Amino acid sequence: MTMIQELMTTVYLDDLTPGQHFRTQSYALAEAELTTFAAQFDPQPFHLDPQAARQSVFGGLVASGWYTAAITMRLMVTSGISIAGGVVGLGGEISWPKPTRPGDELHVEAEVLEVAASRRPDRGVATLRCETRNQLGESVQVLTVKLLVPRRSAAAAGGSAS
Amino acid sequence: MTMIQELMTTVYLDDLTPGQHFRTQSYALAEAELTTFAAQFDPQPFHLDPQAARQSVFGGLVASGWYTAAITMRLMVTSGISIAGGVVGLGGEISWPKPTRPGDELHVEAEVLEVAASRRPDRGVATLRCETRNQLGESVQVLTVKLLVPRRSAAAAGGSAS
Repeated sequence: MTMIQELMTTVYLDDLTPGQHFRTQSYALAEAELTTFAAQFDPQPFHLDPQAARQSVFGGLVASGWYTAAITMRLMVTSGISIAGGVVGLGGEISWPKPTRPGDELHVEAEVLEVAASRRPDRGVATLRCETRNQLGESVQVLTVKLLVPRRSAAAAGGSAS
Repeated sequence: MTMIQELMTTVYLDDLTPGQHFRTQSYALAEAELTTFAAQFDPQPFHLDPQAARQSVFGGLVASGWYTAAITMRLMVTSGISIAGGVVGLGGEISWPKPTRPGDELHVEAEVLEVAASRRPDRGVATLRCETRNQLGESVQVLTVKLLVPRRSAAAAGGSAS
């Protein structure tokens, strides 16, 4: 397995191979950020109010799963893979094996699972498994996502006669 | 098919049946909110800068898929289904067939696909298909999500001797 970051800065479909992997930097979850997100997008007591959260199935304040997803995206975009044209997701599978809580420090470990050319010759689809872990190494989110990735050949054809 | 909202306010697993469906209120996407979200969680040019976005694969400014997911959750929690104990997602499948753009007005149409008791007698898992559509009726997100739902019997056993 090869660390992608050691190889290149901006990657095209042609640069991706199953087994390549990378790890992002980490992000500490502050309670205020977590509850601000919840107030706007997921206003439920166990995401907003520590006291009410103690009576919930979680036993304490937890982040919205969509906040974990948003932080995962932030980590992928700012310190993960740099794809030509940007990180453009088509969809995928997501699960939250454990909740995230205030004070948790999250990072993402990602691996290329599959690389497929599209019918259109200028692009293809890469499938990545992105596992978000907390400071104990526990998995808090597993996202298997399909990304739209341009081919290097298309970029070259547009830029010169090569 | 039965509209869930016509039947009850807070639902338990026992109240859910495949084919039940509901529709949320709608939410208008403001450009400023969309770019604020992107700056924090998905800082890519096609989510932040209208001019740069015109050169991208999207041909104009689009919302992060995770913003569409967050708005979907907001609509589900505030005007969708009211589940005893809250809307607690375990995971699911997500796709973004079309991007969302500033000015779009989104709502969610959801249907119960499957209801399964867990080994634990006090709860089970309901699978819902939640389709987020824009003002033209176009599908911008399809989320098939598994929700943890308490059983009414468990609540009754806790509350009285019935």
